[in-house]
Amino acid sequence: MKTRAAVAWAANKPLTIETIEIGGPKAGEVLVENMATGICHTDAYTLSGLDSEGKFPAVLGHEGAGIVREVGAGVTGVKVGDHVIPLYTPECRQCKSCLSQRTNLCTAIRSTQGQGVMPDGTSRFSCDGGEIFHYMGCSTFSNFTVLPEIALAKVREDAPFDKICYIGCGVTTGIGAVVYTGKVWPGANVVVFGLGGIGLNVIQGARMVGADKIIGVDLNPAKVEMAKRFGMTHFVNPDEVGRDKVVQAIVDLTGGGADFSFECIGNVHTMRQALECCHRGWGESIIIGVAPSGTEVATRPFQLVTGRVWKGSAFGGARGRTDVPKIVDWYMDGKISIDPLITHTMPLEKINDAFDLMHEGKSIRSVVTF
Amino acid sequence: MKTRAAVAWAANKPLTIETIEIGGPKAGEVLVENMATGICHTDAYTLSGLDSEGKFPAVLGHEGAGIVREVGAGVTGVKVGDHVIPLYTPECRQCKSCLSQRTNLCTAIRSTQGQGVMPDGTSRFSCDGGEIFHYMGCSTFSNFTVLPEIALAKVREDAPFDKICYIGCGVTTGIGAVVYTGKVWPGANVVVFGLGGIGLNVIQGARMVGADKIIGVDLNPAKVEMAKRFGMTHFVNPDEVGRDKVVQAIVDLTGGGADFSFECIGNVHTMRQALECCHRGWGESIIIGVAPSGTEVATRPFQLVTGRVWKGSAFGGARGRTDVPKIVDWYMDGKISIDPLITHTMPLEKINDAFDLMHEGKSIRSVVTF
Repeated sequence: MKTRAAVAWAANKPLTIETIEIGGPKAGEVLVENMATGICHTDAYTLSGLDSEGKFPAVLGHEGAGIVREVGAGVTGVKVGDHVIPLYTPECRQCKSCLSQRTNLCTAIRSTQGQGVMPDGTSRFSCDGGEIFHYMGCSTFSNFTVLPEIALAKVREDAPFDKICYIGCGVTTGIGAVVYTGKVWPGANVVVFGLGGIGLNVIQGARMVGADKIIGVDLNPAKVEMAKRFGMTHFVNPDEVGRDKVVQAIVDLTGGGADFSFECIGNVHTMRQALECCHRGWGESIIIGVAPSGTEVATRPFQLVTGRVWKGSAFGGARGRTDVPKIVDWYMDGKISIDPLITHTMPLEKINDAFDLMHEGKSIRSVVTF
Repeated sequence: MKTRAAVAWAANKPLTIETIEIGGPKAGEVLVENMATGICHTDAYTLSGLDSEGKFPAVLGHEGAGIVREVGAGVTGVKVGDHVIPLYTPECRQCKSCLSQRTNLCTAIRSTQGQGVMPDGTSRFSCDGGEIFHYMGCSTFSNFTVLPEIALAKVREDAPFDKICYIGCGVTTGIGAVVYTGKVWPGANVVVFGLGGIGLNVIQGARMVGADKIIGVDLNPAKVEMAKRFGMTHFVNPDEVGRDKVVQAIVDLTGGGADFSFECIGNVHTMRQALECCHRGWGESIIIGVAPSGTEVATRPFQLVTGRVWKGSAFGGARGRTDVPKIVDWYMDGKISIDPLITHTMPLEKINDAFDLMHEGKSIRSVVTF
């Protein structure tokens, strides 16, 4: 069959809207009609050509929401008509990682996913006879896409696609880091480095679980208003307190250090500050941001020996099929907020505008509706 | 009253055996007759003059076992005749750290302890009218010493002083890191960098809790025999597999990486290897060794974002008054072994020999009996 899709033909070129061919779902696979997709920094990173795993031509996009239209042989987890969110971190419930019950990083289809193909080693996308690669196992910049059954979270049908698509990446990454990776407790003092989309979701996750002080750190005071709306209680601007005095400012504000800190920037210097502002004895620092390739984090080992813990979080530590439907419920129940974060909505034809808005810092999240 | 003690008059000078004055216990304090003391690398580090907190003249020593001979006003936790192990990490059960229930690093007397004095700011030791400093709140190189009540673990009376003194530091540091900091589970794969006294105690701790593979890493094959006796199942010699291939060797041996690694050397390069040999998704690396001042640990943040955890352990994460008596029980019940680790025993007059044996690598642990 045919589908409309925004195709990335090469690095650093605008996407073009094409009508491409899509093969039907093979065994264990599902055809999904995407109803909406967010545009994320990771898409832009791959499009920039800096992603060493990036392959072209490809259908990018990994933050979607849609409806099951056809299922391949043996599929039992979803049926035609189900509302679903595609998962770039699948949940097979059978691999060593899933069975460990200690990580969300399912490894069932990791190698083929990284190669831009389905688990059987082939692509379902083509255009004029030429193969087009999948992306992060999702390719949500296509109206129709094919995914393995294990990469679909079934969600409630009353949830709006143009909002819950954001749960496919950013919302879960931020809120999950608080709930699943950090297991932040009520009354904890939390510090968030970077008040972009991920940082705002960390903030509202911390508010949801009953954190006490929620301290935001950012160089841009224009971000304060929205951050307060999401639950930030204190703001530290490194340019005001002194860039080398951020740690001390947080230690002072918290009476000894943070119980949890979250780095949502991707800068190895703020990663270090995030660790060192943690409370002696138990403070945990969780890296969410993706640092430039080749860079390294460093600290004196004394920081760890005296009880601080350094960890990271990918997809918020959430198990996609198990936890994403719960986060959709939290949104529908009003425990978390998504609408104010989606600052722009546009049709597929305008998708390049979404990248421009992101690069210009004018959007928190843009969403394409099909 | 008078007591015999080995006094460190200055950095890098041999200790001299003196008869010095010791003041009686003030309120909340306890006079202890030390029956035995271990000689630890930390004593040697301070004696070398490299310890920025080191003060002279001082009575060093922090790994003792003895009997309560007199209690000051208000002391209720111990009574005359009780057998005790002095604690350089006290447990007041009232400070923010103790009440957090998330760390063993009690802060009740930290500042005065670091200054070489009792909590009231004065020393109980003097010689010919000149003040002599306490050390790590213990000063176990003196036959009699004074400690705050919160810095004494009461232990069973049938346990031999010349063995359980080692529980005052090395045994607890190694076994505690497994039991309390790591909470290593049965069936876990464990890697231990450095097969000295601490590493051997990590190994037997891992064996006690039912670890599966227990892999030792050391440059010295002479250490293999004793390590196997304590529970090591596999040995990796970096000079045999290649110093830059240690991580891969461990990943291969464990089928993906260690569930837990422990760095017992104090080298920032092996600290990095210890982190990076951990299993993606959940592997935890615990730093025990003390690195030279000014050095830093580093890694790519990707190592953490993909689920590895970096932490440290001091005094094995053990709460002294609560956990040290249990470790004495484990020794008396045969769950752990101490006797083979105490390679040399000597009278106080020979204490400088203990330092020589340590520097020459001829001892695992030397113990002085009074």
